[in-house]
Amino acid sequence: MSNALDEYAVRLGRDGRVAGRKLALTSGKQRNEALRAMATAMREQTDVLVAENAKDLAAAQANGLTSAMIDRLKLDPGRVGKMAQAVLEIAEQPDPVGETIEGHVRPDGFRVEKRRVPLGVVAIIYEARPNVTSDAAALCIKSANACILRGGKESFHSNMAIGSAISSALAKVGLPAEAVQIVNTTDRNLVPILLRQDENIDLVIPRGGESLIRAVVEQSRIPVIKHYTGNCHVYVDAGCPAALAESVVLNAKVQRPGVCNAAETILFHRDTADTLLPVIGRKLMDAKVEIRGCPETCKRLPGCKPATEQDWYTEYLDLIVAVKVVDSLQDAIDHINKHGSHHTDAILTPDVGAADAFVTGVDSGNVMVNCSTRLSDGGVYGLGAEIGISTDKLHARGPMGAADLTTYKWVVTGSGHIRQ
Amino acid sequence: MSNALDEYAVRLGRDGRVAGRKLALTSGKQRNEALRAMATAMREQTDVLVAENAKDLAAAQANGLTSAMIDRLKLDPGRVGKMAQAVLEIAEQPDPVGETIEGHVRPDGFRVEKRRVPLGVVAIIYEARPNVTSDAAALCIKSANACILRGGKESFHSNMAIGSAISSALAKVGLPAEAVQIVNTTDRNLVPILLRQDENIDLVIPRGGESLIRAVVEQSRIPVIKHYTGNCHVYVDAGCPAALAESVVLNAKVQRPGVCNAAETILFHRDTADTLLPVIGRKLMDAKVEIRGCPETCKRLPGCKPATEQDWYTEYLDLIVAVKVVDSLQDAIDHINKHGSHHTDAILTPDVGAADAFVTGVDSGNVMVNCSTRLSDGGVYGLGAEIGISTDKLHARGPMGAADLTTYKWVVTGSGHIRQ
Repeated sequence: MSNALDEYAVRLGRDGRVAGRKLALTSGKQRNEALRAMATAMREQTDVLVAENAKDLAAAQANGLTSAMIDRLKLDPGRVGKMAQAVLEIAEQPDPVGETIEGHVRPDGFRVEKRRVPLGVVAIIYEARPNVTSDAAALCIKSANACILRGGKESFHSNMAIGSAISSALAKVGLPAEAVQIVNTTDRNLVPILLRQDENIDLVIPRGGESLIRAVVEQSRIPVIKHYTGNCHVYVDAGCPAALAESVVLNAKVQRPGVCNAAETILFHRDTADTLLPVIGRKLMDAKVEIRGCPETCKRLPGCKPATEQDWYTEYLDLIVAVKVVDSLQDAIDHINKHGSHHTDAILTPDVGAADAFVTGVDSGNVMVNCSTRLSDGGVYGLGAEIGISTDKLHARGPMGAADLTTYKWVVTGSGHIRQ
Repeated sequence: MSNALDEYAVRLGRDGRVAGRKLALTSGKQRNEALRAMATAMREQTDVLVAENAKDLAAAQANGLTSAMIDRLKLDPGRVGKMAQAVLEIAEQPDPVGETIEGHVRPDGFRVEKRRVPLGVVAIIYEARPNVTSDAAALCIKSANACILRGGKESFHSNMAIGSAISSALAKVGLPAEAVQIVNTTDRNLVPILLRQDENIDLVIPRGGESLIRAVVEQSRIPVIKHYTGNCHVYVDAGCPAALAESVVLNAKVQRPGVCNAAETILFHRDTADTLLPVIGRKLMDAKVEIRGCPETCKRLPGCKPATEQDWYTEYLDLIVAVKVVDSLQDAIDHINKHGSHHTDAILTPDVGAADAFVTGVDSGNVMVNCSTRLSDGGVYGLGAEIGISTDKLHARGPMGAADLTTYKWVVTGSGHIRQ
């Protein structure tokens, strides 16, 4: 068995490499045609997708998956339509491939140019969300990368059905079938073998919970871009208007508490501890948010539970929030840099100097001034669809769009120039 | 002992992180002053540097290092002056930090900006070349990164002396001493421990032979940018003028055969096999180059040795070259993609279509049209000093300058904007 898995992993990499080389020679127009054909195929095959998804749902119920997991897994005609629509929107975006990022003529007369090119082969390891299959495939086709998609075993039938729709679209427009390869086994032993195919796979993106991502990082010889979740902060600075603080803090915490850009800790400058803190604390409690506060917070907010040191590090993804009073802007910055996850942090302040110091001092991928952490999103930023939000510093940081699935090559054009 | 090493590695990371945070708040002017003070200190301490280097040289001779290694290790007043000059040139370069890479206002009226910021802490693991110590430190100071420098044990005294000159310069301009940390032990066991400090070290750059780089990749939990060496090709296309082919092939192979951007394989289009190949082959032999050829080559070139399959993969770094006749441009591209190391490859052709197909088809970091592979270099491209030539595709590819030691953060400025 292990031999067959080894062979399969090697073949996925090699076939991906060949397909990637072919994709690199296609025009943006051809790739957009593939995306439109893919959207059409998904719409036309809605009944098949829903029927195959029903097999996954039945297994999920039999295996006692949580209702939240089953909800993420479920496909219905409306959701298939939305997935197809997302693919069409990716087709409408500008082509990232071939862009001249920078270029100049050197004094000796030869031309040096940095040109954007596809990475080659991208592997995406994810959990039981069928929409990731079509989103990731579409972003990779857009950026002329071959992809290898390994979704959770819970969504296996759904993913194979989506893969079949994608195959028919690729065939229709004459792109190589191996441009999108859906892993056809749920054997978990394949993953570590796949992660050693560094000769043919250029990038791995794990999407899912922290344990999945850590396992991939631990096993991979291929560079990984990590999408860890977010322990996001809102800092209410001295002098912050009450209306601004209330509106943004409530939005950041309760509008959708289960996502990575929701706020997990609110920091109040001491000057606001007797004014804004009790009012906003009460409004959070009215919105059914449990508050875990520092002693200064609990003193001012009946019903507040005392926070432990662990709370400052915790991403609740729930209607729970940690609240702390800090003595200064610098204390807020230090707290965030120490306890945060470098994902998204906000300052609410009327003071331009404080805003600038916060933006410079906070070592996070997204720093928000007078707006909600919930705005940290590829769609909101105007990137179109996103492959995720990178918590790495290398290559891409924050929301990643199709252009973040590219690299560049230096193209140097001379007329016989040699090194002197 | 292992405990003390653990503590030292953790301290290097933590102190680097604190220093990096401080550096991120400095102005480009302050950092340039530090660089100028560093150049001055190195010049003033030339006698000390040369004396400390003499200890390394004595040990190197006692340990029987090759004369090439001893030459790379050696410092004299002229070389110290050149190192100081390189630091001054880095000071003259534009400041990469703070650049707005892109920015726009979203339809709802908030502003989204991608701003260039330092990575934080960079570790560089290298061999016995003292000039890497000053170059790397200078590039990291320029880009507002703290650095941890671990050079080869053969250059230990030289590195500590250079580090002392740097410390005095940092103190003089009020930058933190831990901005540049030279590892003060030659214990090899430190390196794997250091490579696990992923919480505080953001990037590792190994500089040296392939075995050093592979060991770092194998052991590191920190992202690594690899600087593997180059198996570079020159492809002489049909119709290539004789003067162009001769001049560039000779330059690419013999001008400095021991470096990564020297050519290792020359490919001749079949149409040139009876004309250019024998002439250029003879000139290479006149320049004392050993030729290992395909059967078609050996047929036309007396004195040519037959090449083995292994030759096509080999980076000789010496006066040896592999020569092959190919049937077409596509065969040349396929040969390069299969056997090359994706470093630097050149086409010599009068045909713009062939040049374009080669540039698009060859999956290398540097693709040269009608010029020598030897031009693949940060200085030649106008980047100023380089930290090396990346053979990775992620983050930075090809020659890397100070700007490649940065990342970006998204800065979002609103007036109370929330997620709807």
